[in-house]
Amino acid sequence: LKSPLITLLTDFGTQDYFVGAIKGVILSLNPNAQIVDITHDVPPQDIPAAAFNLLACYKDFPAATIHVAVVDPGVGSSRIPLMIECAGQFFVGPDNGIFSWICERERNWRAIHLHNEKFFRHPVSTTFHGRDVFAPVAAALSKGTPSSQLGAEVSDIVRLESLKTKKIDDGRIEGSVIYIDRFGNCITNLTREDLAASKAGAPAKLIVNGREITSFREFFADSGTDDEPFCVIGSAGFLEIAMKNSEAAAVLNVGRGDRVILMM
Amino acid sequence: LKSPLITLLTDFGTQDYFVGAIKGVILSLNPNAQIVDITHDVPPQDIPAAAFNLLACYKDFPAATIHVAVVDPGVGSSRIPLMIECAGQFFVGPDNGIFSWICERERNWRAIHLHNEKFFRHPVSTTFHGRDVFAPVAAALSKGTPSSQLGAEVSDIVRLESLKTKKIDDGRIEGSVIYIDRFGNCITNLTREDLAASKAGAPAKLIVNGREITSFREFFADSGTDDEPFCVIGSAGFLEIAMKNSEAAAVLNVGRGDRVILMM
Amino acid sequence: LKSPLITLLTDFGTQDYFVGAIKGVILSLNPNAQIVDITHDVPPQDIPAAAFNLLACYKDFPAATIHVAVVDPGVGSSRIPLMIECAGQFFVGPDNGIFSWICERERNWRAIHLHNEKFFRHPVSTTFHGRDVFAPVAAALSKGTPSSQLGAEVSDIVRLESLKTKKIDDGRIEGSVIYIDRFGNCITNLTREDLAASKAGAPAKLIVNGREITSFREFFADSGTDDEPFCVIGSAGFLEIAMKNSEAAAVLNVGRGDRVILMM
Repeated sequence: LKSPLITLLTDFGTQDYFVGAIKGVILSLNPNAQIVDITHDVPPQDIPAAAFNLLACYKDFPAATIHVAVVDPGVGSSRIPLMIECAGQFFVGPDNGIFSWICERERNWRAIHLHNEKFFRHPVSTTFHGRDVFAPVAAALSKGTPSSQLGAEVSDIVRLESLKTKKIDDGRIEGSVIYIDRFGNCITNLTREDLAASKAGAPAKLIVNGREITSFREFFADSGTDDEPFCVIGSAGFLEIAMKNSEAAAVLNVGRGDRVILMM
Repeated sequence: LKSPLITLLTDFGTQDYFVGAIKGVILSLNPNAQIVDITHDVPPQDIPAAAFNLLACYKDFPAATIHVAVVDPGVGSSRIPLMIECAGQFFVGPDNGIFSWICERERNWRAIHLHNEKFFRHPVSTTFHGRDVFAPVAAALSKGTPSSQLGAEVSDIVRLESLKTKKIDDGRIEGSVIYIDRFGNCITNLTREDLAASKAGAPAKLIVNGREITSFREFFADSGTDDEPFCVIGSAGFLEIAMKNSEAAAVLNVGRGDRVILMM
Repeated sequence: LKSPLITLLTDFGTQDYFVGAIKGVILSLNPNAQIVDITHDVPPQDIPAAAFNLLACYKDFPAATIHVAVVDPGVGSSRIPLMIECAGQFFVGPDNGIFSWICERERNWRAIHLHNEKFFRHPVSTTFHGRDVFAPVAAALSKGTPSSQLGAEVSDIVRLESLKTKKIDDGRIEGSVIYIDRFGNCITNLTREDLAASKAGAPAKLIVNGREITSFREFFADSGTDDEPFCVIGSAGFLEIAMKNSEAAAVLNVGRGDRVILMM
């Protein structure tokens, strides 16, 4: 019998007791749960960064995995706690857009407002729903509690700005930088499909921050000088702007949200 | 059959092999042990920070959990290695105060001087008792070794300064900042009981570093301007000084050990 | 039945989804695998740092442990993916020297070029072999796949500079700093055997960066002033240059690769 898998993705950092408390609560309720950290180093309150990282890896986990994602600037306010069933997995966290890119991609999903306090840790603190709401609900799910017992279905969820790129005209597609990773790579929302839409079968260039990038490579260690930025389809399936031995984001002075134009 | 649970809390950081070695030793001795990291990012040699973080989450773990806490500036010197039974759990680490706040809260506890070297990893290095003493003893405990075999009972332990607050007069309670967390929240040793002791049912203000804080909120996202510090009972059960989108510790220039006065 | 143990050691950091993706892939293929993080905070592309940390702890893990080590600046290029059987354990990663110090110490080892793409995650990205090559191969190994199915034996591997020290003359042994740890301790390649080679049974001094260190201690908390650097045999079995409450590397301005001379 395999152990139910619960992943954690938060902005709690690893310096304090927060993550330990969440794991303690889960293992107190279900000693057979297997807990995997995705990351706890999401920049504080950065919902899009959390959304991107979960989007980039949820498909690598087995069916029935329970993903707990807690980047929750609105904790204690009126934002509702949510459970989403989607892609054969479960997603537990605040209704603030953290799961919206996954729902946008998968299309078929069902959301439950977690209002059955019977499954919470009591007393519920006003500041730490990761421990008091989301952890115990995830533990309940991992023990087979039907989602219908956890709350009532809701028809829509809070959404982040769409990941869709925009066709400006036959020669140009507009996208944006959606994430900067540890290596300074700038991940855009452009995909292999956008590249394939180019007439010549390969794009001419990418424009970012007034700079033209004309090198489209297959991998990081490909030929080319160290100080030349290049484009590559990264491991999350998106076009990334990278440099061989430098941080492209710093060198190009590119930040999240910056516009990029793919020229055919 | 559930796996025995062993938590780790150290100042070893996550950059070096230290934590890996500890886990290897535990799993070599007991492959069924389930290991949970509380944190390895305690500031180097900061015993009170370790003590606070363990205090804040040990109750979230199930009965019989074995907590290994190694912040150990005196490693290799005459400080003794300790095992404490308390609150239905086990605590393994150096006798330097790291467990004293838990003992202060629980009152009932029993301490064993770990002197039976049969349970150590040999040769015992002089610099890394986390791997050579505490990890193998925790593994032995997790396999059911009676604590009486591990060493002899001791009557007292090294203690950190008490967490008790001080009633100055009918209108004032004195406490101090005992921890600053990742978000810059200043956790004090004042509790809900101290607040309840106020005549009006709610305190008038908290004074810290010459500044008066008059806002007492229920949660972080509560109404109020962003640049106004406020007090809230945090998730560890202590009164915290916080700000909505800033680090209170930096803005107020407050550090650990700073005195706070609760005015009724 | 105990779970097969897989360790991870990478330079992926803990901020992004990379480590989560690797764990998801492993647990999708083998839900019974037990995954242990050694570290993900190796400085980016720093192969010797990865090699040192694995060398310092692999012996603490049980027989048949599968170590996945991915610091891989040449990902996507012609460097081959490797599996090494050595010391009763398995080592999976790129052929770039990351395992060479272990092979140098153990002498008996066997290396397999992982070219059977049947065991890879498809499509294989050009940028993330940790997820697409090394993780699924490790999962296959953990399920008992014979190494002969994974690829063909190779006769040699890429090697880092040897860890051997050099006897200059009867009175002097030359070594170098091979690692700086979190505490600023400077780990050299000198061992207890080098110390034992001294005529008097104890060395006279160590010279590093023009400075003479004459204090050889048994442990960190030993007597001596705080601002005096000293030598100690550290927990990895090598001579370290340390200071009691300071970072020796910073104070002495010592970096990796710096030459040290042990004077008898």
